[in-house]
Amino acid sequence: MSELRYDPLQRRWVIIATERQKRPGDFSQPTQIARNKRDCPFCPGAESSTPPEIYALRPADTPPDSPGWTLRVIPNRFPALSGDDGGIEWHDEADLYKTLPGVGAHEVVIEGTDHDAGPSELSLALIEDILNIYKKRLRELSENRRLKYTLIFKNHGSIAGASLSHPHSQIISTPVTPRTVAIELISSKKYFAKHKKCLVCELIKSETSDNRRVVYDDGNFICFTTFAPRFPFELFLAPINHKHDFAALDKDDTRALAKCMKEILYRLKVCLTDPPLNYLIHTSPNLSAEPTPAGYWDTIAEDYHWHIEIMPRLTRTAGFEWGSGLHINPMLPENAAVFLKAVEMASLK
Amino acid sequence: MSELRYDPLQRRWVIIATERQKRPGDFSQPTQIARNKRDCPFCPGAESSTPPEIYALRPADTPPDSPGWTLRVIPNRFPALSGDDGGIEWHDEADLYKTLPGVGAHEVVIEGTDHDAGPSELSLALIEDILNIYKKRLRELSENRRLKYTLIFKNHGSIAGASLSHPHSQIISTPVTPRTVAIELISSKKYFAKHKKCLVCELIKSETSDNRRVVYDDGNFICFTTFAPRFPFELFLAPINHKHDFAALDKDDTRALAKCMKEILYRLKVCLTDPPLNYLIHTSPNLSAEPTPAGYWDTIAEDYHWHIEIMPRLTRTAGFEWGSGLHINPMLPENAAVFLKAVEMASLK
Repeated sequence: MSELRYDPLQRRWVIIATERQKRPGDFSQPTQIARNKRDCPFCPGAESSTPPEIYALRPADTPPDSPGWTLRVIPNRFPALSGDDGGIEWHDEADLYKTLPGVGAHEVVIEGTDHDAGPSELSLALIEDILNIYKKRLRELSENRRLKYTLIFKNHGSIAGASLSHPHSQIISTPVTPRTVAIELISSKKYFAKHKKCLVCELIKSETSDNRRVVYDDGNFICFTTFAPRFPFELFLAPINHKHDFAALDKDDTRALAKCMKEILYRLKVCLTDPPLNYLIHTSPNLSAEPTPAGYWDTIAEDYHWHIEIMPRLTRTAGFEWGSGLHINPMLPENAAVFLKAVEMASLK
Repeated sequence: MSELRYDPLQRRWVIIATERQKRPGDFSQPTQIARNKRDCPFCPGAESSTPPEIYALRPADTPPDSPGWTLRVIPNRFPALSGDDGGIEWHDEADLYKTLPGVGAHEVVIEGTDHDAGPSELSLALIEDILNIYKKRLRELSENRRLKYTLIFKNHGSIAGASLSHPHSQIISTPVTPRTVAIELISSKKYFAKHKKCLVCELIKSETSDNRRVVYDDGNFICFTTFAPRFPFELFLAPINHKHDFAALDKDDTRALAKCMKEILYRLKVCLTDPPLNYLIHTSPNLSAEPTPAGYWDTIAEDYHWHIEIMPRLTRTAGFEWGSGLHINPMLPENAAVFLKAVEMASLK
């Protein structure tokens, strides 16, 4: 099984995914994307080429892993983490190295049956179904108390890390709180302790009043280019009213979010000619995970604000970024917002 | 000029490099590498197409910016940061956003006159010259007290971020301590406070005694695949005897390091068929930068250990990595070391 290893100098965990083990020659070609529908394991009719489905939207009279579905959730064939629990927790005596067994989950959401649909070409109803599946799996995975966090994300295009072109997103649950999430949780907690206000609520207020970076605002959801973006055209999307838990999204808000996502993804597609992109959901960690110090999450419902980060992948990260953690971005977010707002919405279907 | 902006949620700085400002259409094609020597601004004879040189190794009777050199240091034509100081420091009243003027330096080291030389194909003498230039520029740039850190790095191959194929490396000085470096400094300081030992010295002892990940050890320098690597075949190279400051490297050690670099880069080239790669030097920050709290660097000469990180770029970072900071690596470092050690060294020139 996989193993998590901790780097004491960089203070970061990595996942060594032995299920994906390779030899040197396997790396010499970039991953090929199966563009041919005949080779696609996610297309209708190819259900037997995926691991058995965890869940599907399908007529009541169709058996699992048969055609007829409109949405499927399956385990990743090469999971970075899995439920299998043969590993051992270990740390050396000198306070240097430690490992954790790679317990977790790694799932794929197959987003409909249309092999060629881009992110903004999925129907509103389908996007709503996808968001509902995210909520359902977040709730179900939080029942496992060893899993501290569930990250939901989409890779679109091979440069953005997608190895299959059929529309899909992924769900990974981890036995550690990932560093990027931990930093957000701490920033939010400290800001709340000092100001008795939610940091993201304040960011939203500031963005609304400034207005130069706001691309979408329907009174329920806001989407703006971030003030300090790592990548050109990076966007931050959040509910305007404070909510810490994506899984608790109600029906009306789910519909409103689907509409916002579709419009933003369409603006990116037109403005940047179908760019490779990632989006990811940052929501509350699993509050029932153990061990957690008593009282640790006491203010999270007030201090943390769930959101979605959307990143077109237009620039390359090089030695400077990997060595510094400091990104160089050639695009002012105020200008990126102008370009995105200029996209004509008339032809959005 | 450029501007540094701070993200209060992610607690990270980014550089908005307006000198590199683009329109949406400029991103639609990946950066083309000028492979043709006639178009190459770094080849001998094209000196006038670069900004005036900062330094060069050249015969005493040749004027600056003329042919005859064996090594040149020039300002980057599109600097991420520069000496120009027109910006203002700003932060808003709500403790949210802040900016810093993009004061700094961004230089290019043109590594010899052979347009086609790969990283391991540079001569030992040339690699030694390059290391000496790094030391010289580190010392000179540290005279500017506004510059807190200087990062030296090389991008080889377009996937690794190189926009020109002529061998070169880069030097960027920043007015903030980059996050990745800050985390290392803190880990080292805390480990030293607890154990009265240098963390990296202890890592080296542990690696030497374990020996499974060690690829190179000549008694002066050690190079091993890291225990918790972000990328397949990621390597850590360091002096075996404790040193905190790369710029203080003496003549013998510089020669020994050149030999180690050449051998490691050759092993990577053969094992992975000339992979795109980055390397970067993590050394002491500028100890005379201001403001720094009094006493802050009191133990750095004992607690911090300079090193070089080498990363072949064989995998893609996707939504999961950007959203979590947690890397998925399909290659056990113990196996990567076996593959690297198996490379025949007989034909290394």
